[in-house]
Amino acid sequence: MASTEGSKLWGGRFVGDTDPIMEKFNASIAYDQRMWDADIRGSKAYVKALERAKLVSTDEMEQILHGMDQVKSQQTSCGYMFSQELIGAPAGKLHTGRSRNDQVVTDMRLWLRSAISTLTDNALQLITTMVERAAAEIEVLFPGYTHMQRAQPIRWSHWILSHAVALSRDVERLQELKKRVNVLPLGSGAIAGTPFDIDRELLQRELGFDSISVNSMDATGQRDFVAEFLFWASLCLTHLSKMAEDLILYSTKEFSFIKLSDAYSTGSSLMPQKKNADSLELIRSKAGRAFGRCAGFMMTLKSLPSTYNKDLQEDKEAMFDCYDNVQAVLQVTTGVMSTLKINQTVMEAALSPDMLATDLAYYLVRKGVPFREAHGLSGKAVFTAESKNIALNQLTVEDLTGISPLFGSDVSSVWDYRSSVEQYSAPGGTAKSSVAAQVEHLRNWLKKHAQ
Amino acid sequence: MASTEGSKLWGGRFVGDTDPIMEKFNASIAYDQRMWDADIRGSKAYVKALERAKLVSTDEMEQILHGMDQVKSQQTSCGYMFSQELIGAPAGKLHTGRSRNDQVVTDMRLWLRSAISTLTDNALQLITTMVERAAAEIEVLFPGYTHMQRAQPIRWSHWILSHAVALSRDVERLQELKKRVNVLPLGSGAIAGTPFDIDRELLQRELGFDSISVNSMDATGQRDFVAEFLFWASLCLTHLSKMAEDLILYSTKEFSFIKLSDAYSTGSSLMPQKKNADSLELIRSKAGRAFGRCAGFMMTLKSLPSTYNKDLQEDKEAMFDCYDNVQAVLQVTTGVMSTLKINQTVMEAALSPDMLATDLAYYLVRKGVPFREAHGLSGKAVFTAESKNIALNQLTVEDLTGISPLFGSDVSSVWDYRSSVEQYSAPGGTAKSSVAAQVEHLRNWLKKHAQ
Amino acid sequence: MASTEGSKLWGGRFVGDTDPIMEKFNASIAYDQRMWDADIRGSKAYVKALERAKLVSTDEMEQILHGMDQVKSQQTSCGYMFSQELIGAPAGKLHTGRSRNDQVVTDMRLWLRSAISTLTDNALQLITTMVERAAAEIEVLFPGYTHMQRAQPIRWSHWILSHAVALSRDVERLQELKKRVNVLPLGSGAIAGTPFDIDRELLQRELGFDSISVNSMDATGQRDFVAEFLFWASLCLTHLSKMAEDLILYSTKEFSFIKLSDAYSTGSSLMPQKKNADSLELIRSKAGRAFGRCAGFMMTLKSLPSTYNKDLQEDKEAMFDCYDNVQAVLQVTTGVMSTLKINQTVMEAALSPDMLATDLAYYLVRKGVPFREAHGLSGKAVFTAESKNIALNQLTVEDLTGISPLFGSDVSSVWDYRSSVEQYSAPGGTAKSSVAAQVEHLRNWLKKHAQ
Amino acid sequence: MASTEGSKLWGGRFVGDTDPIMEKFNASIAYDQRMWDADIRGSKAYVKALERAKLVSTDEMEQILHGMDQVKSQQTSCGYMFSQELIGAPAGKLHTGRSRNDQVVTDMRLWLRSAISTLTDNALQLITTMVERAAAEIEVLFPGYTHMQRAQPIRWSHWILSHAVALSRDVERLQELKKRVNVLPLGSGAIAGTPFDIDRELLQRELGFDSISVNSMDATGQRDFVAEFLFWASLCLTHLSKMAEDLILYSTKEFSFIKLSDAYSTGSSLMPQKKNADSLELIRSKAGRAFGRCAGFMMTLKSLPSTYNKDLQEDKEAMFDCYDNVQAVLQVTTGVMSTLKINQTVMEAALSPDMLATDLAYYLVRKGVPFREAHGLSGKAVFTAESKNIALNQLTVEDLTGISPLFGSDVSSVWDYRSSVEQYSAPGGTAKSSVAAQVEHLRNWLKKHAQ
Repeated sequence: MASTEGSKLWGGRFVGDTDPIMEKFNASIAYDQRMWDADIRGSKAYVKALERAKLVSTDEMEQILHGMDQVKSQQTSCGYMFSQELIGAPAGKLHTGRSRNDQVVTDMRLWLRSAISTLTDNALQLITTMVERAAAEIEVLFPGYTHMQRAQPIRWSHWILSHAVALSRDVERLQELKKRVNVLPLGSGAIAGTPFDIDRELLQRELGFDSISVNSMDATGQRDFVAEFLFWASLCLTHLSKMAEDLILYSTKEFSFIKLSDAYSTGSSLMPQKKNADSLELIRSKAGRAFGRCAGFMMTLKSLPSTYNKDLQEDKEAMFDCYDNVQAVLQVTTGVMSTLKINQTVMEAALSPDMLATDLAYYLVRKGVPFREAHGLSGKAVFTAESKNIALNQLTVEDLTGISPLFGSDVSSVWDYRSSVEQYSAPGGTAKSSVAAQVEHLRNWLKKHAQ
Repeated sequence: MASTEGSKLWGGRFVGDTDPIMEKFNASIAYDQRMWDADIRGSKAYVKALERAKLVSTDEMEQILHGMDQVKSQQTSCGYMFSQELIGAPAGKLHTGRSRNDQVVTDMRLWLRSAISTLTDNALQLITTMVERAAAEIEVLFPGYTHMQRAQPIRWSHWILSHAVALSRDVERLQELKKRVNVLPLGSGAIAGTPFDIDRELLQRELGFDSISVNSMDATGQRDFVAEFLFWASLCLTHLSKMAEDLILYSTKEFSFIKLSDAYSTGSSLMPQKKNADSLELIRSKAGRAFGRCAGFMMTLKSLPSTYNKDLQEDKEAMFDCYDNVQAVLQVTTGVMSTLKINQTVMEAALSPDMLATDLAYYLVRKGVPFREAHGLSGKAVFTAESKNIALNQLTVEDLTGISPLFGSDVSSVWDYRSSVEQYSAPGGTAKSSVAAQVEHLRNWLKKHAQ
Repeated sequence: MASTEGSKLWGGRFVGDTDPIMEKFNASIAYDQRMWDADIRGSKAYVKALERAKLVSTDEMEQILHGMDQVKSQQTSCGYMFSQELIGAPAGKLHTGRSRNDQVVTDMRLWLRSAISTLTDNALQLITTMVERAAAEIEVLFPGYTHMQRAQPIRWSHWILSHAVALSRDVERLQELKKRVNVLPLGSGAIAGTPFDIDRELLQRELGFDSISVNSMDATGQRDFVAEFLFWASLCLTHLSKMAEDLILYSTKEFSFIKLSDAYSTGSSLMPQKKNADSLELIRSKAGRAFGRCAGFMMTLKSLPSTYNKDLQEDKEAMFDCYDNVQAVLQVTTGVMSTLKINQTVMEAALSPDMLATDLAYYLVRKGVPFREAHGLSGKAVFTAESKNIALNQLTVEDLTGISPLFGSDVSSVWDYRSSVEQYSAPGGTAKSSVAAQVEHLRNWLKKHAQ
Repeated sequence: MASTEGSKLWGGRFVGDTDPIMEKFNASIAYDQRMWDADIRGSKAYVKALERAKLVSTDEMEQILHGMDQVKSQQTSCGYMFSQELIGAPAGKLHTGRSRNDQVVTDMRLWLRSAISTLTDNALQLITTMVERAAAEIEVLFPGYTHMQRAQPIRWSHWILSHAVALSRDVERLQELKKRVNVLPLGSGAIAGTPFDIDRELLQRELGFDSISVNSMDATGQRDFVAEFLFWASLCLTHLSKMAEDLILYSTKEFSFIKLSDAYSTGSSLMPQKKNADSLELIRSKAGRAFGRCAGFMMTLKSLPSTYNKDLQEDKEAMFDCYDNVQAVLQVTTGVMSTLKINQTVMEAALSPDMLATDLAYYLVRKGVPFREAHGLSGKAVFTAESKNIALNQLTVEDLTGISPLFGSDVSSVWDYRSSVEQYSAPGGTAKSSVAAQVEHLRNWLKKHAQ
């Protein structure tokens, strides 16, 4: 990368000195370093294209390739090295027809492609963990909530799978954007393209890109592939934040449905009894951070005219930070989900007869009452039970027939939570067969998406 | 939609009155109205499923279907009507097993599917306009800029196509997210699914959905399909903002490359000579607005636990507003791009010999000088010309051989802008053949994507 | 406002027609209308300055002032009217030296000043409600949570006041930004100032502004006063969202600390037993919306060069929407906070001995044990109790002396929640005296800030 | 800071191991380190309060204070050191009644107070530079632009001051928020306050805080002071971005009004002639980054219930990053503004007669024509000149009297740019006297705000 070399590449013309604060401000070495491997790969491919175009001799090519390998092995052991010294004179030819504009965006695309592959693995591992846990704990019932109020009895596995399904869409999105990432920009120069016989198909093959950029100005100046990745990270982390929020609730003393492994909890510096779900809070917090990176970069991007402007230098830190955070969150979530313990007794004890008020209405619907009316009658039953300060299932048949003559003694069949959930057997519902079908669906999906 | 009916559906239980500010705050009628057609379509399909499940008789179904059609024709002519009056008693059965949670999200998905289709048409029309303009004006050269500084001579068509290519990715993204929009949630109830024999495949066929939601909690509680659309709008508008920014620059007095049609300009209330590119400024401004909608909704979404919470009511206004703005911007941009006039003379006069300094370096590269060195030597030539206050191409052969003995009288061939651009003939470059290939590529792409 | 008048003000020069989509896109009448009163006030002051500068005669001034009053009374009863017809010929002089740039930003500042006054009233009313409720319910204890885990016993009033204090800072911020809003821009023209003897001090006095803008380019082109207000709204709504989130938790079945008034709850279209805290969810949702407006406008603002650009037209809708939402939220929150009922029995039953583990450590500290060590010993006690599956206060003196010989029979004094809270008597703490002092502090603050 | 000490403070209770990814994810040492000085200051004050409360002896206090000083001197020379080893046994008492919750937020407030002081200095230096440059170059005229179109002739100093005035508001905002930062939270414990006789007024005096936090839950759980700072940074950087955008435009070849010093420019790796205004692009880019930090933190904040949650750990990186960037941008902008060179000849040559069309209308106004009509007549003159393809001032008196009989030979007086600007002599205008008054105003303001 040009800016890291001994003397400034544009040395021929400039006469003034640079302000040291400006120098530091301008420096990109800290993040360029992280793409070093990608940069070496790109340069090795480029020198082969230069040789093909007769811009370097075969000997020079070999010398550069060898130097590059040395650079790679050295930087691995002892940090970032300057390439020129290791390559010698032919290094001066490596930039022929190549600009930092097409070079760096090539590095970014190579780096991000590999990052996407890792994230896909991490996400698939998490989904697998969730699906298998759902399969194993399919018998457990607990309250389903809407508006954070108890709504209807559901399976714990149904809850797990609701989050797994959302994550599976995130994986699909990631696969789609990967196609747009995996496009070769090298050979676009600074703006106008390359004037030499650089064989871009050779570059594509060498670097394993799916396609070749169509327009050199677009290739060097647009960063929608980065913005799209940043938003992807925000959305995926929003899904994980939502799941973490549920689990934080479920791990409160008041809910007591789950208990995190100590490996994912921390205590308090002041209060000896505290066991905080710090892991879940960290998971929850990263969606904000990632979205901030997305918002910041979108604002930078939006304010620019076309082609390369230095402002685009903001792209790399945002990309790295989102990657690091999604990766850590996916792994920590996998750890949390494989080690947390549920308290089935508490979960099932939290089911209460009023959660069957909808079923009570359905009882009437099955006897021919239009739903709107049945809903009103069941509401009256709830109100009566509340007024009497008793549970809904403690209303006598007399209480109920006072509300509607259609209520009979068979109403007692309504008050069984397991029967209740078994009614919801349409696709997507909470009946055992339906949840088992969801497990199968996701197992097949996982097979299809295994890398 | 339940909330619009005569009495509150949950009337059976509540005793207090509602605060009028709260009522207004809570009201969704203003935006529900916009999905009225979708709601009727969804309800008509649902009543067919109810009949299949024997929850309404065939007669009741017919009565409801007829009533729905009446509702539709009436609301078209005289505003939003309440369905109950037009349907009569059977209306009370329409909500059997259906919740506002699955009903409204079905409406949204139907509405958005159709909106996506319109936006795709608008985008394809704009791309077509741009591609054909690029084909027609392929001979025009003008300065390519990086960092807003003159960089290299390029074709005007190359610039147009750089924006068309970015928009083509937006269309591809839109097609991809459409698959995730076009999923049937109906039959998910409030959270647990449906307890009746509602045939979800029948619903899918009736409503033309690509697939059926896998998990009822996910179907009613997640809104990533909305978030994804809002971000899509932001990114697409960012591309259009970038193009508008270029055009605003090009229409300044200082650049004078283009002139907007009067239809897309406005004057000043104070300054009689002003002709402002208001259309371009409006185009530029909408990316911020759309991103704000995306940011606001993401923040709302991120702070929620799973399943339906009232906060999600924010989804609709954001979705409508982004649609309206993208649609208007795409159409206005099409108008601007079909009517603006370029000033070829000014554009070509803006090319200056210093923009060929890279070619001067390449001249030396072709004589065997390593690029790094050639870049320095060309830089010296630029510096010499600046010191002498003459144009780069006015340096004498003596001046140049003073810098490098490899310069010869054939250097004069460098100073031709048309020859310069023709060098950039690799795929994506600015040579005529290469730009023509980009036109062909996009024409084929357009054929493939025509709806 | 110029754009609403019969013919376009820039009619002299333009020849083309405008695209109807462009016309609609460009129109600002919908939001200009909302500032109509402010616009009339501004115009009346301006005509007085014109008369002083001898640019209109006294008669013409009277005619315009009279016309303006008519416009005002008519538009109140029958909507937005065009001023020219009501004023007659002198209307043509009203724009002398005035541009839409300085006119509209004057309108916005007048409008926002008045909006700020209303919001201050609403916020003070809410804080008053909260402070008086805190005073009335000072005896109620309940668990204080950190990380959503029970931490230490606190007073319910301490919780209320924690939110009131945050809101008091929001009021202070609003007062500060009001100074920056309340600055006269009129007399800045389009960019360069006014060339006539317009007496800007007269305008300031007539319109009640605190000061006069220093630089005409800044006055017409900057919108930091709007951005600052949008962020203020976001931050204030974030505080209210946080309080709403607490209350939503406290109103879950699992917590059952509070019960909303029916006036602020709604039911479910499907589940008859549901009583959802919709009001709290709406309160919670608006912070996202407001921040979205702020983000959108900041993005628009950030991408502009200086002086007026049409993109700034986005300022008004954002400002109105944030105002409307903060205003509604403040009022609904006041309603919620004045009508919700607490369940003191449940609140106090939720206190558990492990919440006194810090006090147990302090017991040892008071006997000379360094805190770090005392924390560890108390932690051991918690662990022992958990292992034995008993409450912390059920450990015998023997159990405790096994952990530290310093434990004696007086340890029983630790297990009293009322004594525990009374220890926290330093300023800001949860002891009764300390909470009462906070009530007094806020009562004084309210007196000082009453408008 | 607890987490950095030898063993976990909550060691007494936990039995499981921590996941290493979780450990890393959870670690805050990297940013805690940056607040080390603040932390030592806070701890020294706290041990004095402990001694006053007889919780440590005078000897122990001295031992701790001495150890703290050693820690400070050692960490300055050799990095971050652990305090316990240097202080010995009494270190175990330092946390008595103090929690990480009140400790860390105290550190943040001390750190930020000092950061604000530095930023104020940097901003004042920049404003001083700008004001003095404006004073020195008051004679230079150039085009004022609205909508990026030439609008009216203005003074270059008028432009400089327009940005200086905006920055002066940023300094005022910073001073205001400083009051809210400079509040003592120490003594709030984890949530409930402190149970010991900790003298919070002593802490306030020792640490130089303006006031003491009113409520312990608010003090430990709210972060509006951080959010407010992040937004402040975004807004200030937006002002600087706007100025940079102007300067980038002015430094294009097409405008050529200014030339950056080489110290603030860089070249191109490919194009030898390029001299890019990288410094301005970096300045422009940081507003996006800072706003991203603000957006990210606001999203994190908004999704939390009250009191401390681990998610708040995001506060520090955002705060540091915004500080670093604003500080660098203010300094680089000062460098740019003190070294850039203007090209007065080009600037004045860019003034064109059509920019006096408003003055032409005012000529008629002064002869009694209502402005609306005069605007139309001047517009006709512009149109006539354009039709004849001549400059506006080349219209003959005959041409003009054809448009209005009021035009006379004295119209020639209109075509003088210096006379034109001198008309704008009302406060805030572009006349020399008015600009000089703005210089004086800001000089006085600077004196008043010098720290």
